[in-house]
Amino acid sequence: VQFADRVIQSIQQKRSHVVVGLDPVLSRLPAFLLAEAATAHGQSPEGAAAAIRHFSRLVIDAVAPHVPLIKPQSAFYEIWGAPGVAAFWDAVAYAQSKGLIVIADAKRGDIGSTAAAYADAFFGAGSEWQRGLPAADALTVNPYLGTDGLKPFVQRCGAEGHGLFILVKTSNPSSGEFQDQELGGQGPLAAAVARLVDELGRPLVGASGYSSVGAVVGATYPAQAEVYRKLMPRALFLVPGYGAQGGTAADVLPCFNRDGLGALISASRSVNYAWERAGAATPEAFVQATADAAQQMNEEINRALRAAGKLHWA
Amino acid sequence: VQFADRVIQSIQQKRSHVVVGLDPVLSRLPAFLLAEAATAHGQSPEGAAAAIRHFSRLVIDAVAPHVPLIKPQSAFYEIWGAPGVAAFWDAVAYAQSKGLIVIADAKRGDIGSTAAAYADAFFGAGSEWQRGLPAADALTVNPYLGTDGLKPFVQRCGAEGHGLFILVKTSNPSSGEFQDQELGGQGPLAAAVARLVDELGRPLVGASGYSSVGAVVGATYPAQAEVYRKLMPRALFLVPGYGAQGGTAADVLPCFNRDGLGALISASRSVNYAWERAGAATPEAFVQATADAAQQMNEEINRALRAAGKLHWA
Repeated sequence: VQFADRVIQSIQQKRSHVVVGLDPVLSRLPAFLLAEAATAHGQSPEGAAAAIRHFSRLVIDAVAPHVPLIKPQSAFYEIWGAPGVAAFWDAVAYAQSKGLIVIADAKRGDIGSTAAAYADAFFGAGSEWQRGLPAADALTVNPYLGTDGLKPFVQRCGAEGHGLFILVKTSNPSSGEFQDQELGGQGPLAAAVARLVDELGRPLVGASGYSSVGAVVGATYPAQAEVYRKLMPRALFLVPGYGAQGGTAADVLPCFNRDGLGALISASRSVNYAWERAGAATPEAFVQATADAAQQMNEEINRALRAAGKLHWA
Repeated sequence: VQFADRVIQSIQQKRSHVVVGLDPVLSRLPAFLLAEAATAHGQSPEGAAAAIRHFSRLVIDAVAPHVPLIKPQSAFYEIWGAPGVAAFWDAVAYAQSKGLIVIADAKRGDIGSTAAAYADAFFGAGSEWQRGLPAADALTVNPYLGTDGLKPFVQRCGAEGHGLFILVKTSNPSSGEFQDQELGGQGPLAAAVARLVDELGRPLVGASGYSSVGAVVGATYPAQAEVYRKLMPRALFLVPGYGAQGGTAADVLPCFNRDGLGALISASRSVNYAWERAGAATPEAFVQATADAAQQMNEEINRALRAAGKLHWA
């Protein structure tokens, strides 16, 4: 089954357009997780990895009934070396076992032969030597190197059922520095990337009408999202910037198509650290606070879609 | 000591401008390495990681006397999951123990808070929990997200002695698709990135006259390298594309300044797989073939520099 079709089906089942990011920052984990890890491993990379592994599993437990997708951010796992990377892949496999679709947020990008190696790393190489390693469902990638750096990933998005989210317009304050500049007199750089996303994704449109080649379009620039939605009508948008980065439910509306689909709204810190606001001090309280935050986000987005006449299941 | 000063000093000591890339592709490793790994671990991620770990150490043994820098490519290690990442960091630490300066070729790039996490992952976070983890000397990064995605890395390039190589003009065939296009009517996108590299690097110029904020400029586009050399007079250029990708000694000349310095010429496959051409079947023969390839590359580049009147130690 095509990646995009699996995503759309899960969105409809769970009535949720939300992607929960996993951004485990050690200093912001609950005391009970740090104490448990320090007791078992001491203050060490193994201890840190154990803490973020347990944290990731608790967040997954909390949100799996409520959202279709999860997006672990590789950077926060790579900090702890190989044990941290083991925790990253544990989160991928655990989330999949709970029925979640996993976007590895690693923003890889390199020349063709190296891009193929990254595709093998995140989607699997079919090699006996990789036996037992999990694979992500989808990956975020960077377009700076052009088409031949993207093709090795795109080639894995057909029969194998993987998905891709190519950075188009990112959510950060200085994203416009290059992305918004006129390129070759034909609109902004991000629009040129958007046209490439549409072209690469056209052969990979599934029964849902959406393509397995998607785009990253930040929630923080709603006026531009409207333009990019038109340039990439069949692309799933992965939309970061909701919550802690300032994006609101109203801001993400332009990322949806008229069918009330097509946008995957991602929040990390506002869900991961909901336990702080709730003062949760036990695993049970942590899971409850996290689940509440995910459900609240579902409600905010669905309410805004309903008000705009775009709620898919209305 | 500033990163750039350490690099220039090592170039002068070893009379070499060469960076040896580590691109361990399992299917191209010598049979004796695969047999050894399969015997110890079976065909498994641990086995693959053991094979590429030993391969990396042999390449490092071979080239450490002859070149100043080594550049492990993260993708080829990440294929094997956490054990592969352990092999990556083993290569970093082993190379440093042999006096080599290490550029982690990972091409990371993300929004500010995530870029800071990547900086912590590659340069160390100074956290007790990271105890025992090695750190790379320098990192390759992607500029697509703009200044606030680069600053967290740049901030680690001062007192801490780390270095950075920002992608400007990459070596792959479709690098021009975006990088060569006119941006905002002020020259190509890559030139806008080059101006940012120069600006970010200006406060980080060491005693050598070079900055710890460098640039990736491919050997495969010599005419453009000349332009970028002028736009970034103080930047160290990391120059991929030599050898297997088609770049020659003549092609890399424009990457050097008139002082005969400033360019780090990288080759991976042509050195890593020199053993195939030599038919090496033992560790000793492997090391010899690899060392010969590195020395031959030194000679090619130094000869071309001498002919152009640019040999620094002439």
